[in-house]
Amino acid sequence: MTKTVTVLSGLIRPLVEDRLPDWVEPRFFQSKEEAMALAPEAEIGWFDMYDKADMAAAITAATRMKWLNSIYAGVDGMPLDLLAERGTVVTNGAGINAITIAEYVVMGMLTVAKGYREVVRAQERREWLHDSPGKAELFGSKALLLGYGAIGKLIEERLKGFAVDVTVVRRSPGPNNLAPDQWRARLGEFDWVILAVPATPETDAMIGADELAAMKSSATLINIARGSVVDQAALVAALDAKRIAAAFLDVTTPEPLPADDPLWSLDNAHVTMHLSGRAQDKMFVRAASRFLENLSCWHRGEPVAPQVDLTLGY
Amino acid sequence: MTKTVTVLSGLIRPLVEDRLPDWVEPRFFQSKEEAMALAPEAEIGWFDMYDKADMAAAITAATRMKWLNSIYAGVDGMPLDLLAERGTVVTNGAGINAITIAEYVVMGMLTVAKGYREVVRAQERREWLHDSPGKAELFGSKALLLGYGAIGKLIEERLKGFAVDVTVVRRSPGPNNLAPDQWRARLGEFDWVILAVPATPETDAMIGADELAAMKSSATLINIARGSVVDQAALVAALDAKRIAAAFLDVTTPEPLPADDPLWSLDNAHVTMHLSGRAQDKMFVRAASRFLENLSCWHRGEPVAPQVDLTLGY
Repeated sequence: MTKTVTVLSGLIRPLVEDRLPDWVEPRFFQSKEEAMALAPEAEIGWFDMYDKADMAAAITAATRMKWLNSIYAGVDGMPLDLLAERGTVVTNGAGINAITIAEYVVMGMLTVAKGYREVVRAQERREWLHDSPGKAELFGSKALLLGYGAIGKLIEERLKGFAVDVTVVRRSPGPNNLAPDQWRARLGEFDWVILAVPATPETDAMIGADELAAMKSSATLINIARGSVVDQAALVAALDAKRIAAAFLDVTTPEPLPADDPLWSLDNAHVTMHLSGRAQDKMFVRAASRFLENLSCWHRGEPVAPQVDLTLGY
Repeated sequence: MTKTVTVLSGLIRPLVEDRLPDWVEPRFFQSKEEAMALAPEAEIGWFDMYDKADMAAAITAATRMKWLNSIYAGVDGMPLDLLAERGTVVTNGAGINAITIAEYVVMGMLTVAKGYREVVRAQERREWLHDSPGKAELFGSKALLLGYGAIGKLIEERLKGFAVDVTVVRRSPGPNNLAPDQWRARLGEFDWVILAVPATPETDAMIGADELAAMKSSATLINIARGSVVDQAALVAALDAKRIAAAFLDVTTPEPLPADDPLWSLDNAHVTMHLSGRAQDKMFVRAASRFLENLSCWHRGEPVAPQVDLTLGY
């Protein structure tokens, strides 16, 4: 039997090595140099690297690769045009982090609502506060949810448990849906604007000065998508002028945020350092299990999932 | 028509004055002295005061009072034996704060799970963390919920949205219920132990050294009931020795907690200063509306609600 050369990051070796089917010939890399050396032979590849340029270089060198897998949900660092041209199937980590990111969003909303950060600081001062620094309830509040993928759906599910009135932006019409050309005119109705969209040319800077000005002054912006989705200079200005109440930002431009960035010290900016998806210990286990299931599908000639649409970019 | 003398705290005057029925003769007090002076004539009374001893004195002086109302859920500061002896009906604030307290509990669980306090501190240092200080998910975790009143039910509802497996302690049998004599033997199964019981002789120090030792070392104790429900010295020892992972304590013994109390500085103790019920702006509005509805019931001879069982103490 001819085996299929499969090039994999050494990070996932302990999770998959004993469970790979016998038609797979695994080759694990420990460095970008090893990845570059192994790439030309790869028929299946899992080239995740912290440095996105190194990852793109290895993918570019993998000229025989038919299927590329990634643990990341966002594929904006990959050479998508090249992969499309080559006809490479790309599966991503959509949904792998979805549960923990959805939990993080609710945490962000609750901590902003209750002014919890001030409570943390009061404990450090050993000061017994006599009133809550935040007095908002999620109950009965209104949220606009932009992005209705795996993460968006889990956010909606959790917010419904709090009786939050969730409006979703999507193309298909529905009782609590707004179409992509409708939400801007309705921005002033919401207590929460939650960004869970993929980073694409269409979503680039979709929240700018106009959108921030249209929001309620008591509203909070939550971004767990990508920094590029927000015009950050406009956001800093809006927060500084209290034109919106707060922003809970898991993502920023750039990342890491430089030490002199104004976002760090704005008292209504909550910076969570792209940790939302990392606040779990099951990410690699889930990604490995999904990859092993996909290997079986691949071998049987069935579709692997979830596949990235290389034109849409998610 | 003979009017019914109704003695009310001045605090709620703006919320009820224009809406009182004409059979009510309202008398508002602004101080404990005024409360004491008005008490003997009160047929209906709302004697909430910050100082529980003053409140008890006014209630004791209200010898003609047939119905006592309170915004508080906990009635442990009231002379319950005396009220029972006199046959006074007592309605309390059970449920008034329930929504916001339930939200606070979920916030506490999420912030502990994700190590959010460390994220707040990192932002203050302008430090971009590269991994999450907490990696637990609510998803699939197991919670033991002690106390199944208005608050407990709302906690359960919210946690179900996160796919938390909630076990409830109550007398009536059910698929996810444990009886009051069963939960201690099962303590080692839970990631979260949530105290939402009323403060009664039965619940006094119900969590002590034995119960803490029986919990998982990775478990978190959440107390939004009363400080007296926990043996606090035993809890401090368990937290200090990391026998349990963390405690999220909205209530303590005493309150306010003295500046030299060890709870303030334990890195796994989260002290939230009895703010959970105050993290809202609708408490007085809700209590006033409920009182006005109850006045109509009272006048028609129908039962007022929710009534405190003066023997059980809640």
